[in-house]
Amino acid sequence: MSNRTLKLGANLSGVGNSMFHWRHPDMPTDASVSLSFYQEQARIAEQGKFDLLFIADGLYINEKSNPHFLNRFEPLTILSALAAVTEKIGLVATLSTTYSDPFTVARQFGSLDQLSGGRAGWNVVTSPLEGSAKNFSKAEHPAHAERYQIAEEFLEVVKGLWDSWEDDAFVRDKASGIFFTPAKLHALHHRGTYFSVQGPLNIARSKQGHPVIFQAGSSDSGKDLAAKSADAVYTAHETLVEAQRFYQEVKARAVAYGRLPDDVLIFPGIQPIVGRTFEEAERKYKEIAELVTIESALDYLGRYFEHHDFSRYELDAPFPDIGDLGTNSFRSTTEKIKQEAREQNLTLREVAIRASTPRGSFIGTPEYVADLIQQWFEAGAADGFNIRNVVPTGLKDFVELVVPILQERGIYRTAYEHDTLRGNLGLSVPVNRYTASLA
Amino acid sequence: MSNRTLKLGANLSGVGNSMFHWRHPDMPTDASVSLSFYQEQARIAEQGKFDLLFIADGLYINEKSNPHFLNRFEPLTILSALAAVTEKIGLVATLSTTYSDPFTVARQFGSLDQLSGGRAGWNVVTSPLEGSAKNFSKAEHPAHAERYQIAEEFLEVVKGLWDSWEDDAFVRDKASGIFFTPAKLHALHHRGTYFSVQGPLNIARSKQGHPVIFQAGSSDSGKDLAAKSADAVYTAHETLVEAQRFYQEVKARAVAYGRLPDDVLIFPGIQPIVGRTFEEAERKYKEIAELVTIESALDYLGRYFEHHDFSRYELDAPFPDIGDLGTNSFRSTTEKIKQEAREQNLTLREVAIRASTPRGSFIGTPEYVADLIQQWFEAGAADGFNIRNVVPTGLKDFVELVVPILQERGIYRTAYEHDTLRGNLGLSVPVNRYTASLA
Ligand SMILES: Cc1cc2nc3c(=O)[nH]c(=O)nc-3n(C[C@H](O)[C@H](O)[C@H](O)COP(=O)(O)O)c2cc1C
Ligand SMILES: Cc1cc2nc3c(=O)[nH]c(=O)nc-3n(C[C@H](O)[C@H](O)[C@H](O)COP(=O)(O)O)c2cc1C
Repeated sequence: MSNRTLKLGANLSGVGNSMFHWRHPDMPTDASVSLSFYQEQARIAEQGKFDLLFIADGLYINEKSNPHFLNRFEPLTILSALAAVTEKIGLVATLSTTYSDPFTVARQFGSLDQLSGGRAGWNVVTSPLEGSAKNFSKAEHPAHAERYQIAEEFLEVVKGLWDSWEDDAFVRDKASGIFFTPAKLHALHHRGTYFSVQGPLNIARSKQGHPVIFQAGSSDSGKDLAAKSADAVYTAHETLVEAQRFYQEVKARAVAYGRLPDDVLIFPGIQPIVGRTFEEAERKYKEIAELVTIESALDYLGRYFEHHDFSRYELDAPFPDIGDLGTNSFRSTTEKIKQEAREQNLTLREVAIRASTPRGSFIGTPEYVADLIQQWFEAGAADGFNIRNVVPTGLKDFVELVVPILQERGIYRTAYEHDTLRGNLGLSVPVNRYTASLA
Repeated sequence: MSNRTLKLGANLSGVGNSMFHWRHPDMPTDASVSLSFYQEQARIAEQGKFDLLFIADGLYINEKSNPHFLNRFEPLTILSALAAVTEKIGLVATLSTTYSDPFTVARQFGSLDQLSGGRAGWNVVTSPLEGSAKNFSKAEHPAHAERYQIAEEFLEVVKGLWDSWEDDAFVRDKASGIFFTPAKLHALHHRGTYFSVQGPLNIARSKQGHPVIFQAGSSDSGKDLAAKSADAVYTAHETLVEAQRFYQEVKARAVAYGRLPDDVLIFPGIQPIVGRTFEEAERKYKEIAELVTIESALDYLGRYFEHHDFSRYELDAPFPDIGDLGTNSFRSTTEKIKQEAREQNLTLREVAIRASTPRGSFIGTPEYVADLIQQWFEAGAADGFNIRNVVPTGLKDFVELVVPILQERGIYRTAYEHDTLRGNLGLSVPVNRYTASLA
């Protein structure tokens, strides 16, 4: 028996990622901008001994966007607020390398990491939405491949800035008046294709060394970036086989980069709906599925394809041929949608409904959901899961009903082992590049 | 009698703004990166019914920098953390318009504003330090005048983005399925000299409308920006006469821009040292003044002048002629230093010691300090004060000893009147530009 244990993240998303979840009778309609809502969810997740809270993000909206996207907290600010009212749980913020600056990003994550006592994480994304460019004084949205090249250099710079101060640089000796050892302060002097950053950074490392790097992007370039530079991957798969294939591939690529398979943890996103009986779970699913209208499902689908207007096609005809659309935005997602539509002969209506109210497989009794989780975990499909709520009580149901079963089976913690995110995830503290070079 | 009341801000700065405050026996040497330290200071300030917490900032360090600057929290993250553990006090973060992006800035402040229930403020600065450019992939630090041109456009864009959503845009009606009214969502379509930003912003206004705009920069361009676009000014003056002149001038400029004098509040920064007796206050001052060495005082002085090396001059000779140095960085401060040196025939040693351990005038018994504060407040030199600690117990001393006197005299609140920063400052909620245009 390995002593490998399951990891869990809570993907907090206010009124939800679907167009109509907010209409559920139990959903507070201002959840996306309610500190007390986020605080309550964080409390539940920490009670459930979750490894981390996860906040997704986006940089472009229009009047067709999902309600949650229209008016929501910015990830670093809400997670900083939650840092002050939680103790052990990790805090993972999504931030785009395409529309931000490495010095500020390094600083803000460094600051969150210090103020939380080593619990910060950064979900590195490259921004799928073309419209983002227009909000950031840019002539155009960089192409998919270039976005990943920028991301790679960006991440290198941020990691370099995080090492500006060696861990024992601060002497702080009142008697001698020596605050720090100048030889342990390092400027980066980075000059690359996209960035030129001197450093040093004006914040030191926390006790976990660097914030944990998540990567969310499942295309070839995405997998490659993850294998090379990330500690964890947030991904989305509907079947065990597909998840296993992804898992194996990312681990193999990591090994090819000279890393160990356990250096990069795979977190499929799942949307469990748990009921005390199968009927109850089914009823909970129906309650939210019935909130979705076909018009809003088409809007939701369109967003993945550069806000393509799908309302102009026949609803019950086969999914239309839309050529390359989507390739430059959510590539991995749009390719999967097209492929499934083709392979399963789906109509536009079917594709749209699926995309906006994904049923997933994790619907059922607590035992059933726990079984599936254990199966994926033990069959090499997942190191952990990023849990997204689709029903208002989703996280609470999961923590109250499923977590105790996972604990009883000995695959999930009953108490936090550490007080840093890296510690709880079983990841090692990255050695400071400057300290290392002296060894 | 006017019912005008005094405003107070607490400028929190970890181990302090001087090179050696951290050596004080009672100063926790990790204060600049200690959440519990900041939380305790916030608690004291809120107990003292302060209007706001204020966090200064900087974007460039080297091995000569002040200990606090080397390793400190980033303002937005620490204030978001403090938002979750405070209730009424305002949260003002310094952020530079020279090295950031309006969309992100609008969002992060908007997010802090919503999560704090309308308590956010932004201290707009233009970054004095030339070295900052090297941390932000910029070929050079823009000249003083251009930095202020950028700031003006930046602020216009941010204010425009903050108005993306009219206050009644969110209907959130579960029965009809209408989440918002599309006609009340507005894209900005800004195309200017420095920025091109489409919008809309993905966060709505808080109940105070916009975060409160502070401006800290006292040159001509600085005063002009404040008079035109700010709600408050953070400034530094050593004498009543000088403070009165500044006060009158900014108010007059505001009026010239069609605003009311009370639309822009003047907050001189002061560093009170309070003792139960004058001797006790003097002793507290000595305890910190004696921590400073002449070498560190020269370093501290040098930072204002583009990190000029002052150690090469004769210490006890008149302050050297250094030409234009400093004009392109901390202009208002360096001009004042040069002028005083000239007028008062100061030596380099005297100038350096003064710059790094400013005595200020607010040293004495609680009554004495309260008298001075009342005098400045009533003589048209200040609407409020931004209080900076120079001794570890500075804020506590002030709240325990001076605040009750100000309250007794009826010039300072005994309870918060409002729960937004604008409310407590007596500033009105800015009308949304789009709503206004229909009126
Ligand atoms: C599971 C998953 C979650 C993602 N979450 C975000 C997100 O929160 N914000 C964002 O801008 N992009 C997100 N992305 C998009 C990617 O970061 C990336 O911009 C886009 O998908 C293109 O990358 P890919 O083709 O490699 O998947 C996510 C992608 C996946 C697969
Ligand atoms: C009282 C005062 C406080 C300031 N605080 C900051 C600060 O926290 N961060 C910063 O980058 N600049 C700060 N500045 C600098 C100004 O924002 C500006 O960059 C510089 O002083 C040049 O402007 P000026 O010549 O108009 O004063 C401050 C200036 C003054 C006068």
